[in-house]
Amino acid sequence: MTTPALAALRARFGDHCSTARPVLEAHGRDESGLDFALPEAVVFAQSEEDVLSALQLAREHGLAVVPFAVGSSLEGQVIPVRGGLSLDLSGMKRIVAIEPGGFQATVQPGVTYPELNRLLRSHGLFFPVDPGAEASLGGMASTNASGTGAVKYGTTRDNVLEMRVALMDGRVIRVGSKARKTSAGYDLKHLFIGAEGTLGVITELTVRLWPRPAELAVLRCTFATIAEAAACAVSVMHAALGPERLELLDEEQLRAVNRHRGTAYPERPTLWIELGASSRAALDGALELCRELCLDAGGQTLHAAFSEAERASIWEARHHAYYALRALYPNHANLSTDLCVPLHRLPDVLAFTRRRCDERGLHASFVGHVGDGNFHVLFHAAPDDHAGWATIHEVYGEMVTAALEAGGTCTGEHGVGLHKRAYLAQERPDSLELMRGIKALLDPEGLLNPGKIL
Amino acid sequence: MTTPALAALRARFGDHCSTARPVLEAHGRDESGLDFALPEAVVFAQSEEDVLSALQLAREHGLAVVPFAVGSSLEGQVIPVRGGLSLDLSGMKRIVAIEPGGFQATVQPGVTYPELNRLLRSHGLFFPVDPGAEASLGGMASTNASGTGAVKYGTTRDNVLEMRVALMDGRVIRVGSKARKTSAGYDLKHLFIGAEGTLGVITELTVRLWPRPAELAVLRCTFATIAEAAACAVSVMHAALGPERLELLDEEQLRAVNRHRGTAYPERPTLWIELGASSRAALDGALELCRELCLDAGGQTLHAAFSEAERASIWEARHHAYYALRALYPNHANLSTDLCVPLHRLPDVLAFTRRRCDERGLHASFVGHVGDGNFHVLFHAAPDDHAGWATIHEVYGEMVTAALEAGGTCTGEHGVGLHKRAYLAQERPDSLELMRGIKALLDPEGLLNPGKIL
Ligand SMILES: Cc1cc2nc3c(=O)[nH]c(=O)nc-3n(C[C@H](O)[C@H](O)[C@H](O)COP(=O)(O)OP(=O)(O)OC[C@H]3O[C@@H](n4cnc5c(N)ncnc54)[C@H](O)[C@@H]3O)c2cc1C
Ligand SMILES: Cc1cc2nc3c(=O)[nH]c(=O)nc-3n(C[C@H](O)[C@H](O)[C@H](O)COP(=O)(O)OP(=O)(O)OC[C@H]3O[C@@H](n4cnc5c(N)ncnc54)[C@H](O)[C@@H]3O)c2cc1C
Repeated sequence: MTTPALAALRARFGDHCSTARPVLEAHGRDESGLDFALPEAVVFAQSEEDVLSALQLAREHGLAVVPFAVGSSLEGQVIPVRGGLSLDLSGMKRIVAIEPGGFQATVQPGVTYPELNRLLRSHGLFFPVDPGAEASLGGMASTNASGTGAVKYGTTRDNVLEMRVALMDGRVIRVGSKARKTSAGYDLKHLFIGAEGTLGVITELTVRLWPRPAELAVLRCTFATIAEAAACAVSVMHAALGPERLELLDEEQLRAVNRHRGTAYPERPTLWIELGASSRAALDGALELCRELCLDAGGQTLHAAFSEAERASIWEARHHAYYALRALYPNHANLSTDLCVPLHRLPDVLAFTRRRCDERGLHASFVGHVGDGNFHVLFHAAPDDHAGWATIHEVYGEMVTAALEAGGTCTGEHGVGLHKRAYLAQERPDSLELMRGIKALLDPEGLLNPGKIL
Repeated sequence: MTTPALAALRARFGDHCSTARPVLEAHGRDESGLDFALPEAVVFAQSEEDVLSALQLAREHGLAVVPFAVGSSLEGQVIPVRGGLSLDLSGMKRIVAIEPGGFQATVQPGVTYPELNRLLRSHGLFFPVDPGAEASLGGMASTNASGTGAVKYGTTRDNVLEMRVALMDGRVIRVGSKARKTSAGYDLKHLFIGAEGTLGVITELTVRLWPRPAELAVLRCTFATIAEAAACAVSVMHAALGPERLELLDEEQLRAVNRHRGTAYPERPTLWIELGASSRAALDGALELCRELCLDAGGQTLHAAFSEAERASIWEARHHAYYALRALYPNHANLSTDLCVPLHRLPDVLAFTRRRCDERGLHASFVGHVGDGNFHVLFHAAPDDHAGWATIHEVYGEMVTAALEAGGTCTGEHGVGLHKRAYLAQERPDSLELMRGIKALLDPEGLLNPGKIL
């Protein structure tokens, strides 16, 4: 960064602009830990005006700008590969409005979903998208995150009504509507959702809220193989039980969870199925049907959790699954895949993946939001095990090809970032050009989060 | 159209290209009947190749191209205001695949939603978006149509997984994914949904299917005023009953329905509320709660319909409401508004609208998908009643302003077309430029459905 550029940033942002080494380092990596590159400065935005000033200075001085919120993304999205500015939005935490009667809340982008949910408790409402990490709503919109709640309530995309977005040319536009539906012109909202900070900076979001079901229970059921567990998940979806959550964890994942949390879950392929209902009688009816489906599908042990404490502990274990696995191999690097396929193809794509991992001697664990047809394989190996990583990438490539052949996608929820650009090109060869055209329209100098997605 | 252009069309399309006067006239109006302009020729596409050829000839000869399916849109979307070609897609009716296990069907764009639903019956599945008319799936995607099912299942936007789109430059791209969710790059699917045929021609759609609820009942409840009925609709939504449908009809609308269909519904402001459940016991519980909410809100007469025949007759009456009203004033022209506001603002925006209509002596009727915050006012007057139409447009303008101030939109489902361009500009002054940029990217010559939206 040139001296005048830095001076201009300092003049505008004072203490909210930092070049301290630890601050730069904290903005040089994401939760995958796979890549690292330092920004030249970090600006801590407190307001939309701060964002606009940062974009203006970036434009004037030709600086790359990488929006940064919690940094929990896994595909290298926040890594400043071209240096420049990391624009930290985590301080934009204002709750602008909560409208329980309109099932909506308006917040600044640095508010995390657990923070929002704590405020909503007293209203009997919640925001249903819950990626494991304490992610921000701006970050979640930017990767189109989902999580365990997506099977019932949809992804972040489905739960953002309106946004304010600061553009590289200095304008702020409002996209979407606070109304639940609109057909007013081209839908620009969905262009910014999932754009990973490459098209604009989200400065405010109005999100959709949902009533909490009156009654909830979590059924845990073990199976002999993950293929059986996946087939059972499909049959639960087909029964129109409308589960709140439908998660698959394999034996290795449960071993990690037990180690990490001192629990004693059976270490076998398992489904965790949450059902909700408006009355206990309705819940019991749904549980009964679900139990039968599990047993028909080869379910071995069944356990139902009703208390809030036990349910919370289960979902906390699920949310920490990634960290639990990493803790099992503390000296290994990790790589998480994120395939999503049409539901009827899930069992065979999962079985293919498991078989290829076994055949190639890869020690990987499986976990998935299987009600959506979405699953993750967590690969790990010593960072310098070059042969190991080569095998991992070969199998990963085969998996992506299998998912695409099944009509699926290389990323159900984590996004593209740095790591999946080649897979994106494999998945959408026909639309890369249009994506590039849109990028050029909104960011002609290519300053916004360069090197990501395209 | 120049002679060489017509000759080229005839050479390529033979009998599937027509300049017969009745054919041109059938492609010169939509169901609103408010505008009329003749195309110079109509091409009946049977395949994606036909669409590509038509676009290529349009490009070569500088012809405007207006996609046309069923022509049931209400905002002048299909009117060829610049002449040229009407590209009729209603013959593209192939069912490419039905995948009940993946909750999805792939069809050509001319398939109508009733046609698709007839095929799905035996699978226990259905496509839930149901605008009144027998609309095509391509047309519905292009206006982001909704209908009575949107309150539970979302709009067309929410129920299209993947599309093939033919572009003006001769390419075909695949947008979206057959997987239920994806974060793979910029979302181009949502750009074409709601674009009213101005950005590309949809040649294939994969739509999302849903299981039919096992048990259904429709509660009819009358109220003293539409404001009371609207307030009750809000309280039903707040009770988390998750209604399948939640419709408001005013006294005038019910009078029209009774005349049109020989029914005897009480001619008072009414809610029609459909509830679904997986068992009769659960349904009874929900009905009980719903009845209480209706009575608390001032509900007067309550009636529950359980039989399939009675329910079907109610929804058929609702779907024909527009025609019933037009039949009441056969010599009048009609104008339907389409506001949508956040749910908590619905009662006051509705009450404001009713008051302004009364104050200005406008004889209008109200009907609405009120669970979404969406309602239509059907204005009517003799075509040459200039003072009457001036008053209608003044009140309409006040209504739009009120809806926008409430955070809503000038169109919840009908789209912009010719009629709402000024309202769109009022709603989204900040994003018109970006919309124009996107239009220029995809259709630099401005040949695709010119004069619409922007
Ligand atoms: C343990 C663990 C579990 C996870 N589980 C899931 C899961 O189940 N589902 C899932 O989808 N993801 C999951 N993730 C990934 C991660 O949580 C999501 O990608 C999340 O959306 C990132 O949010 P963030 O606030 O950390 O954003 P960051 O990582 O800070 O940023 C993500 C991207 O968004 C951009 N960005 C951030 N804020 C803005 C803004 N205001 N405007 C414009 N661009 C912005 C950044 O430039 C970057 O490209 C998990 C991650 C971890 C570590
Ligand atoms: C009685 C009645 C009730 C209605 N009720 C509702 C309702 O409840 N909810 C609602 O949303 N709408 C409603 N409508 C409006 C109408 O049904 C919808 O707008 C519907 O989506 C139009 O579908 P269509 O097949 O008739 O399309 P058309 O009217 O033929 O075309 C609509 C638009 O889509 C474009 N188009 C059509 N096919 C394609 C394609 N394959 N590719 C690209 N562009 C294409 C056209 O150029 C045009 O701009 C109603 C209309 C009537 C007459």
